[in-house]
Amino acid sequence: MPVHLNVPSAQSLHPVRGLRIGVTEAGVRKANRKDLVVFELAPGSQVAGVFTLNRFCAAPVQICREHLAQAGGVRGIVINTGNANAGTGADGLARARQTCDALAQQLGVTPAQILPFSTGVIMETLPVDRIVAGLPAAVAGLADNRWLEAAQGIMTTDTLPKAASRRVRIGGADVHVTGIAKGAGMIRPNMATMLGFVGTDAHLAPGLAQALVREAADASFNRITIDGDTSTNDSFVLMATGQAGHARIDSLDSPEGQALRDAVIAVSQELAQAIVRDGEGATKFITIQVDGGRTTAECKQVAYAIAHSPLVKTAFFASDPNLGRILAAVGYAGIDDLDQTLIDLHLDDVLVASRGGRHAAYREEDGQRVMKQAEITVRVTLHRGAASALVWTCDLSHDYVSINADYRS
Amino acid sequence: MPVHLNVPSAQSLHPVRGLRIGVTEAGVRKANRKDLVVFELAPGSQVAGVFTLNRFCAAPVQICREHLAQAGGVRGIVINTGNANAGTGADGLARARQTCDALAQQLGVTPAQILPFSTGVIMETLPVDRIVAGLPAAVAGLADNRWLEAAQGIMTTDTLPKAASRRVRIGGADVHVTGIAKGAGMIRPNMATMLGFVGTDAHLAPGLAQALVREAADASFNRITIDGDTSTNDSFVLMATGQAGHARIDSLDSPEGQALRDAVIAVSQELAQAIVRDGEGATKFITIQVDGGRTTAECKQVAYAIAHSPLVKTAFFASDPNLGRILAAVGYAGIDDLDQTLIDLHLDDVLVASRGGRHAAYREEDGQRVMKQAEITVRVTLHRGAASALVWTCDLSHDYVSINADYRS
Repeated sequence: MPVHLNVPSAQSLHPVRGLRIGVTEAGVRKANRKDLVVFELAPGSQVAGVFTLNRFCAAPVQICREHLAQAGGVRGIVINTGNANAGTGADGLARARQTCDALAQQLGVTPAQILPFSTGVIMETLPVDRIVAGLPAAVAGLADNRWLEAAQGIMTTDTLPKAASRRVRIGGADVHVTGIAKGAGMIRPNMATMLGFVGTDAHLAPGLAQALVREAADASFNRITIDGDTSTNDSFVLMATGQAGHARIDSLDSPEGQALRDAVIAVSQELAQAIVRDGEGATKFITIQVDGGRTTAECKQVAYAIAHSPLVKTAFFASDPNLGRILAAVGYAGIDDLDQTLIDLHLDDVLVASRGGRHAAYREEDGQRVMKQAEITVRVTLHRGAASALVWTCDLSHDYVSINADYRS
Repeated sequence: MPVHLNVPSAQSLHPVRGLRIGVTEAGVRKANRKDLVVFELAPGSQVAGVFTLNRFCAAPVQICREHLAQAGGVRGIVINTGNANAGTGADGLARARQTCDALAQQLGVTPAQILPFSTGVIMETLPVDRIVAGLPAAVAGLADNRWLEAAQGIMTTDTLPKAASRRVRIGGADVHVTGIAKGAGMIRPNMATMLGFVGTDAHLAPGLAQALVREAADASFNRITIDGDTSTNDSFVLMATGQAGHARIDSLDSPEGQALRDAVIAVSQELAQAIVRDGEGATKFITIQVDGGRTTAECKQVAYAIAHSPLVKTAFFASDPNLGRILAAVGYAGIDDLDQTLIDLHLDDVLVASRGGRHAAYREEDGQRVMKQAEITVRVTLHRGAASALVWTCDLSHDYVSINADYRS
């Protein structure tokens, strides 16, 4: 049961000029479901991405990096669900290349202008014949208003499609930013999403798409965690077609650059939070804020220690204010010279622990009241500096175990 | 349901000369259960311990470190279950000291000669009055044959008591090594056990107990993990009374030292494995062996990444050979220059993946056969060096969530 996750209407997802979408049923793993998505991009589009740090990265991720390093200009993207094409060795690379070849032929571009993406089960052979056979139907149906179907077409264990959209005025023109993402387990920073795609018709100077995708990832997908597993396939891609009709943005710090950045980050954060809200088995949406650290890095370390603790996560699931588990996670986060006698812990507005011990005025019923909520903020103050960090996570429930125990059946 | 865990009979646990045990019901948290254990040690005993690296370490851990740093010679140990006295600030320290004072008075020694231990819920006030009131009964019942009751008296979510014992001939004398431990969640290396106590009547030169407890911990409790949570209270203590009647052991590398070391490590490993076999909700006992690394540290990193992955652990629970999840964990273990095209993966005798991809001859039914077993060995070969590491873990089941969601109720 997703936590306060609304599915946007197809109408609320603004088309992005210069970007068309095709979706079809290729039967990659299961019949009768949308599982193949194609993006076609106008010539001159700028495309940039950030990818998993997993050293066992999937074949398509390797090919994306290779193609993005070339100067050809990306013109097409192909995404399948049902099979991750990871842990598949040289054969997996060959099959991902076949997919690129086939789409390139359909779109009349070169294979190096295609980026391939896959998500699903690891270490199974990609049924490339079915994907290639499905491409003509996807390409035949290309249209600019199929974002919601695309969101459906990349789902794995997601229970709901994830999409978000913004429109902003830049230089007298309407600029659109629309994106989709999928989760929902194997989610951890660097990169946290399994797959995320944000398109905009903004016109960007060379290099700005790469800077913006990294900044947006750091503010969104790199702040979420569900189970601490970093996927082999995580990818987040920004596609800027330049078709909106405003003067080119030459700096992200200009007023126009700021407006675009705000919209792209807003869409990315909405998508990232949607992944957590629809985390496998999630019943609670938890914001973890760590303040008073010496560095952002150590604040993140503490926030992730809390966010990854199975004991903390099961306590949230049970609405049990067993909050000492949070202190324990702070303690093992890896800050060697942490002074426990300085630490405060808030649960929403309730001061639970101060100076490292249970706060004298803390009453169990106050903790209980907050723990029963569907959205909770945990705030830890380290009192050793001025840095902060924030991550979003969910609880660990029976359904997480069920979903992952039964995933392939 | 513990995995192949046998409860030893009281008769099979050898008394340790110079070490007497008292056990009583103090009502720390629940009525009608053994929850207070006392060890009384002969004068001249050598006691050494290793403790949690959690910076939020519990009050009793802080006091153990303080008392062990003094030269007084430990004469008594007091352990309560039901309350961890962690996250309790200055008040918790004062209460732990009261416990030491009370036992010191009962045994006619000084408070600095007492080591206190607590396990149970975090961040609740230790009911020191009940513990102090229970001590006379525990002391009145001191006897050398109550090891099994002591194992029962330190349990929390353990379903079975954990104890092990060995007898070896050293210098013409019978030397006894007997120990107890408790788990069963919040288990992760450094220190992995929540509480472990091993007693021996061997006669050791000064300093050897500390060297031996560290070596035994590294070979046992520091190789296990259940959920990756490092407790605030983890402690492992070796007590050597010197009463066995053989000539003093001056080096652990002498034949006599080796014989003792083997026995202490065997008891420690049996206890550590018992914790995993009785891990919260465990249905499988998993050995993870990583070979061919450049350093032991990187092999451990990989082994723990696999052992902590919720996705891997739920696949074991489901007996689902979704083994790509293991490759994914290898990939995100943090070895930056890992070459995925070198990696082999075995499940017991089955070669699942070779050179980073599914092995050509691998058949799903072979993986399935192994996954159905209650005990499984995962072997990853990195092919980049000669180092190895081994850890023991268990699966992640519905019962883990139930146990930890309901722990306090």
